[in-house]
Amino acid sequence: MAANARPVSTRLASSPSQSPAPSAPSLVLLALLPIILSLLFLTFLALQNLLPRSFTLSLPFPFSLLIPQKLGGYSHKTSVESLHHTLTSLSAYRSSQQSSLSAKKRSFRTLGSTGKRYAQALGYQAKLEEITRASATNADLVDGLIGLGKRDFEGGWGWRKGAGGGRPEPGRVIEMLKHFVRDWSTEGVRERSALFTPILSQLEDLYPSMDNFERDNLRILVPGCGLGRLAYEISDLGFDVDANDYSYFIASRLIFKHTESINEHRIFPNIHSFSHHRTAQDMIREVRFPDVLPKPTLLSFQPGDFLELYRQPEVYDAVVTLFFIDTAQDIVGYLETIYRALKPGGYWINEGPLLWAGNPRMECSLDEVLHLARMIGFEQLDLRSVDSDYTGTLDGLFRYIYEAQYWVMIKPKLTLPDSDVVDPPSSSSSSSL
Amino acid sequence: MAANARPVSTRLASSPSQSPAPSAPSLVLLALLPIILSLLFLTFLALQNLLPRSFTLSLPFPFSLLIPQKLGGYSHKTSVESLHHTLTSLSAYRSSQQSSLSAKKRSFRTLGSTGKRYAQALGYQAKLEEITRASATNADLVDGLIGLGKRDFEGGWGWRKGAGGGRPEPGRVIEMLKHFVRDWSTEGVRERSALFTPILSQLEDLYPSMDNFERDNLRILVPGCGLGRLAYEISDLGFDVDANDYSYFIASRLIFKHTESINEHRIFPNIHSFSHHRTAQDMIREVRFPDVLPKPTLLSFQPGDFLELYRQPEVYDAVVTLFFIDTAQDIVGYLETIYRALKPGGYWINEGPLLWAGNPRMECSLDEVLHLARMIGFEQLDLRSVDSDYTGTLDGLFRYIYEAQYWVMIKPKLTLPDSDVVDPPSSSSSSSL
Repeated sequence: MAANARPVSTRLASSPSQSPAPSAPSLVLLALLPIILSLLFLTFLALQNLLPRSFTLSLPFPFSLLIPQKLGGYSHKTSVESLHHTLTSLSAYRSSQQSSLSAKKRSFRTLGSTGKRYAQALGYQAKLEEITRASATNADLVDGLIGLGKRDFEGGWGWRKGAGGGRPEPGRVIEMLKHFVRDWSTEGVRERSALFTPILSQLEDLYPSMDNFERDNLRILVPGCGLGRLAYEISDLGFDVDANDYSYFIASRLIFKHTESINEHRIFPNIHSFSHHRTAQDMIREVRFPDVLPKPTLLSFQPGDFLELYRQPEVYDAVVTLFFIDTAQDIVGYLETIYRALKPGGYWINEGPLLWAGNPRMECSLDEVLHLARMIGFEQLDLRSVDSDYTGTLDGLFRYIYEAQYWVMIKPKLTLPDSDVVDPPSSSSSSSL
Repeated sequence: MAANARPVSTRLASSPSQSPAPSAPSLVLLALLPIILSLLFLTFLALQNLLPRSFTLSLPFPFSLLIPQKLGGYSHKTSVESLHHTLTSLSAYRSSQQSSLSAKKRSFRTLGSTGKRYAQALGYQAKLEEITRASATNADLVDGLIGLGKRDFEGGWGWRKGAGGGRPEPGRVIEMLKHFVRDWSTEGVRERSALFTPILSQLEDLYPSMDNFERDNLRILVPGCGLGRLAYEISDLGFDVDANDYSYFIASRLIFKHTESINEHRIFPNIHSFSHHRTAQDMIREVRFPDVLPKPTLLSFQPGDFLELYRQPEVYDAVVTLFFIDTAQDIVGYLETIYRALKPGGYWINEGPLLWAGNPRMECSLDEVLHLARMIGFEQLDLRSVDSDYTGTLDGLFRYIYEAQYWVMIKPKLTLPDSDVVDPPSSSSSSSL
């Protein structure tokens, strides 16, 4: 990641100037040293795609910093906005939890005396206190993420609490905590397995006879990677993976950069709702993560706007979108970008619902998305439903069931001479599955 | 319903005074007539529970007005508030739909020229126009409900558009339209059958050998009756049912009082979200209702606050709560009220989730609710899970699954001498299922 490179060169450049009263020749040498090192480093950057992956994986510092998070382009403006918004939301989590629990305690105090005696027998107040403590534990982890964001991104790229960053959305922090469970805990195995298996099997089927060394020439893009588990699993099969997301990069850095041991972190994901619990204890259920320590793989996180970052044509052998395409404000732009970024003969594997959010330019039904993809030039190879839970509450009495749509499409090898894009038919045709 | 009685007596009392220049004896007779009629009517009210149900079902006007909606107590203040809020929300539906669709059209217009050509090929703009027309059809039905509310409740008990009624919640109108589908359309059969069958079978098991004539001596309370389908089905088994709800009475009156034929009304319930549709046509799916015309049964709708209305002890042979107890702001009060209202030996049948809303005094887990019920004096006879869909979108790619909890409890025949309520244990005991 580009952000890594900058602190490194700064340190190398400034440390020699700290030695007192140097002689004239050594001064010249010292002045040249950072330039030489920088040139060496830049040469490495330029050449790294030509070097064998197995070689770059064993490089010493500072080159090792680039592996597995090797440099990728990223969209600075949207990343800064997103980082500030993330930090602002993270910094609102503790107080929003406190005020929500205070409101519950105030409401509880209005209970009549009979009610209070029953509540005493249930241990209801003790439950409220336990939830308050669990909430503070969550907030400690969240504070850790703020510190990480400020440290890894040089003071959060100018972020200060209470200044800018837009309207805080503590709800998105709760969502993020639940994503730690879904992506990186043992508790998430069932949901992950249902969704990841079709994709990983497909990739292994498409490139069956290769060992990891050959697969590392195959570049796969995973936009909307979230906390990065699927992208990691794909890279763990040996592929060279670019993982893109607009906003989750602080959270994924916790896993990939700041975790020493399995189950090092703990959270209480169930405290955020009092509904749908079998037992009072279920609400205060602790979840530890991560369930694995990511090995060094060919995985590059590239924060920023998908539409801005991947304009270069014919880069990827496959694009894998999981719960992603319905985040589009412009689904046409998304599909065109996927199509353009694919090499001829490349595959688009999609899995997910069609839950449009915001006020997108188009909000398509399944048949419309498929029709659109065909008009843009894709050929559809596979289409099926994958029933997929989305757990609000672990072991709770309520589930969301997405009949996620799984499809594989190919960008045909023969395209029109001057354009990747097939013109849509001029007459209006009715859409069908 | 009490609201029915007032226009009747007003009309009877005032019509004689319209005859010009009457003689003295006829004046006395005319003055006495309303008193005599009122006495006759009140005598009927007092005695109606002693009369055979088959007789009261065939009574002429004005007595027929009481059947099947016979008079029930209702909580006037909360009903007026609720009626005003309902009317205010209903009157906001059309404009809120229009502004939501306008925003979508504005967003669509920002699509680039390539995107617009694709959209043209998909017929996307035609879809937007069809949805706009469907939305107007829904709004016509909603306007009909406003008219009904103002007519049946004498000008909406003083309601005027734009004056009072609190903050409009058009989202609750959408919810209500979906309840028409769930409760009263063929499309709702599967969901209804999953939830109603356990309850109706249980009631038939508890009172197996009776024919309808004997069952009409058994009084059953259905609080939180919504649009009244379950309450109606129970009354259709021959029981004497009181159906209570805080807010749905205008909608249920459409079905029970203002519908002449099966499938008379039509709505487009799927237009309220662009997400999770298989085809563009699915979004513009028409649903007709009701699938049955309610027969005259012993069913009384009693709008108002459950806690205020049912203070009288030992009235009911059974209380049936479906998707109700989690609406409690005070679950202790709810359970105590159910317990008190039951005759000794009476049954409480519950089915539903624990989705607490608002900021209730207590938000209990399942084990806590069961523990609470036992402390209040119930004995638990049955407990099991009933998987229950809650359809957001008909035939859509997404479902909510409630693992609804079904239980039967009994109020034991032997209770403590001076109280219905068993004191909770003084020491705190841990809760368990």
